[in-house]
Amino acid sequence: MPKQGQCVFFGSDNWAGAAPEINEALAAASSGFAAAYGGDDLTSQLRDELGAFFDRDVDVFCTATGSGANMLALSAVARPGGVVLAQRDAHILVDEACGPESLVGMKLHKLRGRQGRISAQEVLEGLAAYPEGAVYRGRVIAVSMTQGTELGTTYCVMDVAAIGSIARRNGVVLHMDGARFSNALVAQNVPPKAITHEAGVDLLSLGFTKNGAWASEMVVSFRPEFRDDLAYRNKQMGQVFSKNRFAAAQALAMLKDDRWRVLASHANAMAAKLSDAVSGLPGCRLAAPTEINEVFAIMPSAMAETLSQAGAVFAPWPADTVDDDMSVGEGETLVRLVASFATTDEHIDQFVDAASKAKAA
Amino acid sequence: MPKQGQCVFFGSDNWAGAAPEINEALAAASSGFAAAYGGDDLTSQLRDELGAFFDRDVDVFCTATGSGANMLALSAVARPGGVVLAQRDAHILVDEACGPESLVGMKLHKLRGRQGRISAQEVLEGLAAYPEGAVYRGRVIAVSMTQGTELGTTYCVMDVAAIGSIARRNGVVLHMDGARFSNALVAQNVPPKAITHEAGVDLLSLGFTKNGAWASEMVVSFRPEFRDDLAYRNKQMGQVFSKNRFAAAQALAMLKDDRWRVLASHANAMAAKLSDAVSGLPGCRLAAPTEINEVFAIMPSAMAETLSQAGAVFAPWPADTVDDDMSVGEGETLVRLVASFATTDEHIDQFVDAASKAKAA
Amino acid sequence: MPKQGQCVFFGSDNWAGAAPEINEALAAASSGFAAAYGGDDLTSQLRDELGAFFDRDVDVFCTATGSGANMLALSAVARPGGVVLAQRDAHILVDEACGPESLVGMKLHKLRGRQGRISAQEVLEGLAAYPEGAVYRGRVIAVSMTQGTELGTTYCVMDVAAIGSIARRNGVVLHMDGARFSNALVAQNVPPKAITHEAGVDLLSLGFTKNGAWASEMVVSFRPEFRDDLAYRNKQMGQVFSKNRFAAAQALAMLKDDRWRVLASHANAMAAKLSDAVSGLPGCRLAAPTEINEVFAIMPSAMAETLSQAGAVFAPWPADTVDDDMSVGEGETLVRLVASFATTDEHIDQFVDAASKAKAA
Amino acid sequence: MPKQGQCVFFGSDNWAGAAPEINEALAAASSGFAAAYGGDDLTSQLRDELGAFFDRDVDVFCTATGSGANMLALSAVARPGGVVLAQRDAHILVDEACGPESLVGMKLHKLRGRQGRISAQEVLEGLAAYPEGAVYRGRVIAVSMTQGTELGTTYCVMDVAAIGSIARRNGVVLHMDGARFSNALVAQNVPPKAITHEAGVDLLSLGFTKNGAWASEMVVSFRPEFRDDLAYRNKQMGQVFSKNRFAAAQALAMLKDDRWRVLASHANAMAAKLSDAVSGLPGCRLAAPTEINEVFAIMPSAMAETLSQAGAVFAPWPADTVDDDMSVGEGETLVRLVASFATTDEHIDQFVDAASKAKAA
Repeated sequence: MPKQGQCVFFGSDNWAGAAPEINEALAAASSGFAAAYGGDDLTSQLRDELGAFFDRDVDVFCTATGSGANMLALSAVARPGGVVLAQRDAHILVDEACGPESLVGMKLHKLRGRQGRISAQEVLEGLAAYPEGAVYRGRVIAVSMTQGTELGTTYCVMDVAAIGSIARRNGVVLHMDGARFSNALVAQNVPPKAITHEAGVDLLSLGFTKNGAWASEMVVSFRPEFRDDLAYRNKQMGQVFSKNRFAAAQALAMLKDDRWRVLASHANAMAAKLSDAVSGLPGCRLAAPTEINEVFAIMPSAMAETLSQAGAVFAPWPADTVDDDMSVGEGETLVRLVASFATTDEHIDQFVDAASKAKAA
Repeated sequence: MPKQGQCVFFGSDNWAGAAPEINEALAAASSGFAAAYGGDDLTSQLRDELGAFFDRDVDVFCTATGSGANMLALSAVARPGGVVLAQRDAHILVDEACGPESLVGMKLHKLRGRQGRISAQEVLEGLAAYPEGAVYRGRVIAVSMTQGTELGTTYCVMDVAAIGSIARRNGVVLHMDGARFSNALVAQNVPPKAITHEAGVDLLSLGFTKNGAWASEMVVSFRPEFRDDLAYRNKQMGQVFSKNRFAAAQALAMLKDDRWRVLASHANAMAAKLSDAVSGLPGCRLAAPTEINEVFAIMPSAMAETLSQAGAVFAPWPADTVDDDMSVGEGETLVRLVASFATTDEHIDQFVDAASKAKAA
Repeated sequence: MPKQGQCVFFGSDNWAGAAPEINEALAAASSGFAAAYGGDDLTSQLRDELGAFFDRDVDVFCTATGSGANMLALSAVARPGGVVLAQRDAHILVDEACGPESLVGMKLHKLRGRQGRISAQEVLEGLAAYPEGAVYRGRVIAVSMTQGTELGTTYCVMDVAAIGSIARRNGVVLHMDGARFSNALVAQNVPPKAITHEAGVDLLSLGFTKNGAWASEMVVSFRPEFRDDLAYRNKQMGQVFSKNRFAAAQALAMLKDDRWRVLASHANAMAAKLSDAVSGLPGCRLAAPTEINEVFAIMPSAMAETLSQAGAVFAPWPADTVDDDMSVGEGETLVRLVASFATTDEHIDQFVDAASKAKAA
Repeated sequence: MPKQGQCVFFGSDNWAGAAPEINEALAAASSGFAAAYGGDDLTSQLRDELGAFFDRDVDVFCTATGSGANMLALSAVARPGGVVLAQRDAHILVDEACGPESLVGMKLHKLRGRQGRISAQEVLEGLAAYPEGAVYRGRVIAVSMTQGTELGTTYCVMDVAAIGSIARRNGVVLHMDGARFSNALVAQNVPPKAITHEAGVDLLSLGFTKNGAWASEMVVSFRPEFRDDLAYRNKQMGQVFSKNRFAAAQALAMLKDDRWRVLASHANAMAAKLSDAVSGLPGCRLAAPTEINEVFAIMPSAMAETLSQAGAVFAPWPADTVDDDMSVGEGETLVRLVASFATTDEHIDQFVDAASKAKAA
């Protein structure tokens, strides 16, 4: 890999560090004594602030990672024979080393999705695949949606509500993986409550890490009856920080003055700019509209290669991620380009400049 | 609880915040881009530094918590029917919400111990309780020792080596829960290697959080053959920080200029001072010698009550924690007093002063 | 081991084969076609017959083994952090290869018991060991009683009711391991309902195998709300026979004309006779009163040795099984002698005869 | 459902009862005393007989069900992050209520297959989907083949060997689900060893229940290093019959004078006859060649309906089970017709007769 100085990084929003406000918050939280394991004032304050954020009482359980949050949420609703419906590229399906199956004990049922979004129709078909009485098949206990999706798109309020009402009618829980919830919120520009509990979301994995914290992930529960199971499981998973005040401090810093929005808006804007530029390059096209801070583009493999050599850091993506009516052809590569709070105009200009050169070459 | 200003905190070393060096390290790590999930330079550097620390190659897996580290270590050696021998008050047995049983899938076999230490003889008896061929009983797969112990004592090199050789001879793994490893190392004043891998320790849960970090816990493996299982399980448990550079940075800050030693020495010294003072109070005696940063004292319940009202924060401890030849009598309370890097002489003076008053009263 | 012809078998009631009625039932069930996996008429009939037996509607789930039944029952009530209270020698604790911990995911908390019985007081103490809010400890979700006990005694209706009401008040489930339920019922001579659901039992592992079937074990649930979880888990555990009619046929044969009672009465009577004889032998005494078909006796080791050589098959038992106020001395051995439907007066006479000779020797 | 007398049963080979030889064997095994949990002579004899059957030493672990055998086999090879490759309609994937995921802790990766068979090419693609180093994806630990397949076909020696060598080269275990192994063996007419261990099969779930026993399922292991894990896990799963002599007796009866072959040959012949007849009916065609005792046919829905009303018992099958180049059209139904040792020519004649009438109508 070229030296960092020479690189432009679109590898992942996890490659960025932490925003200044996070460091300030951590430093401010570091002195004095406070109860461990979430008994501290900052943790209580976080619950209150998130209650205000979602405009209703919520339970909050901080975890170390988004995978931890997802598994915690699903563990609270797991039952014998339990199956969870999710889009085939969902993080719980392909990026958590089989933890959901192994440690939560569920089967994950893949829904195809379109542009990263699962549809109400697909959810109904998924439910139909596990008819009542077919005990040998198992039973659907939850639907998991990823907001923003794994293809850089988002669900609007009506998308969520349509699936939420199906979930409610069928007695299954609706989980939302919000690893990029801030980016989706900026894209949809609706009140947090409108696109979560009011639309039928029961459990939200809320992540501020990709948004600019160093480790700020949590399960926000809109269902008080899950409180005890979530509390015991969180502890049981080894996901409860002993000095949780530091986890709470980061989330509070993100909520303060809508810092989450400022940072996510920047990341989305950078991605939009990058998306426009890349889609204008010869031989390049988008695999899906760029709605959050991720750009999925199909480009000539030679261009991708040249860009890498020029010091651009980004990830080639599995070709079968694209929809069926679109395909990654011979000599083409699907790439994922992720912007973050730390992305600058210069990064994008360098990237596009190198890409243009590549094309010229 | 009285206002923080009026309190002296001996509740737990988890109640202290983070040492200044930790904040500096976190701030320094926060800028620029770096590979996620441990692919960064700081994580590599940590492996090298710990290799130097233990004077041999090691594998290092950062986790969010000590419970996570313990479960990760044991998961790598878990087999069907697996049983782990541990001192009856071990953290894995009484403080992890049954995670080791539930998520690792093992039975934990309690050894009585003395002054918090299990003996080679007890380990042999534990092994004998699961004879070969008695499949219905299960089989011992590991012994877990806690260094420093749950009663504020430590194992010397010979203690560890005696159990280590039994473990080796019986083909079981020796795990060490080192949540207070720094404090034990200061107390024993021996090279890290002498009291770990050279004495037969295979897997170490190494914790710097109680030592003064905000979240710095890891499994250090001295057995390369466990590498893959540890790597997959760590990811599977949702214990791999996406921005692991911040976890590595904390551990590196602890290792730099033996910061761990400076902070642990202070905590131990404060505990020693407190121990001397408390054991000198009328009606007070120690439940075990104070070798690290924890004091376990039996005191008149009235004194404990007065101290609490005076603003001293500390934990009453289960009376059955003490050895059989010692007992917590009527009107007496066993208390745990924990010092940390943040404990000051003033804290101790206030506590002892209040205790003396209590006695006079 | 001596040839079978020369032996008298008190090794276990599992060493006996099957009663004639069982063979007849299996043969009768073997012709014709019937729905698999419990959809057959015999399975429906079994549910009805057991409903009549317990004088209320019940759910019935056949399993392959008693261990399977125990794990199935406990799986239906398992929650994160779940702990089950049981007598320290309970089958789930010492004879199931850690399956309850590993596959159900619970911690088992040992209660000391007296003469094999746990007391209401011990249950209260067990509950107190997991105070509300102490999430790190876990929480009690069930109490498991073994009827008849692992020391050959039984619980009377009041014993069960006392624990049943505590369970109900504390919101925990009461499970009964009835591997020798028939023998206990004969000993207590009360209606099945009186000593189960009327006394607070929620889930019963009902075993007819030791009673004389070859494989007839089931979970009888008195709690309709557990139906679905039990059904899915049973299938999930691979415990649902494809040709369940044969499992049902065995249980039906046991219920027909109270065959269970005839066979258990014989086994109990044989054990009583053996118990009287053995307790009369010099140097011999009972470790607990013989209430069912098991005799626990402390005898001179020399006598035990001579008996084995003479062809008596029985199991030496862990000395620490006896109560604290009783002890197995130097040169003494605790032995378990189990009678079954197949035990004859001759077996007992031979045994006692050999024992007397041993003593004379 | 029509009365049994009026019915012809092609619902499943699990709907048949037990062959006479099984009843005789059970009756013969029922008298006398024998060691429990597999310590008896019949169990030892079974190991020897299966050793002779496969022409090499084997380990044998009886289970209650085929699902139990599959989970036991896979449990022995499970590792953190473990993934198993299997044909998308495999029993472990769609008929075991998520037990493999939940109780073994693995992800199951679907391979498309053709006519029920997975190809070496698909296995290579499956392996490629979990590249080394992509810890977040998990890692392939085993390939599971079903012999005969879920579409009534079989793998020849070369099919198995091709996948076996890939498994060996990639360090993954090859498991064979042999729920209908006898039928496949008759179809392929090769020595058992040739199509199992000599072709690279490590673990075989061998089932005699569908073949004519009432409950005779077992794991046959060709890998001595799995012995301990299999033994502990079998006990842990509650799959070890206390009176295992009865399980062994059934398998021995099947092996004696090649009874398995006689019964499977009959079942296959009946299926062949049925297949020929059905494929000759107007509007009917086979979804796959009939190689064992299962016929998968696509027929006019009206015909299927008429047959059901006429008393034919059989299962409609998911339309997406057929290969991509074949489809179940409008007004058509895919049905599974299963013959067994108990199927007679009359059954088939009645069925075909009714079908012809249906067509005429």
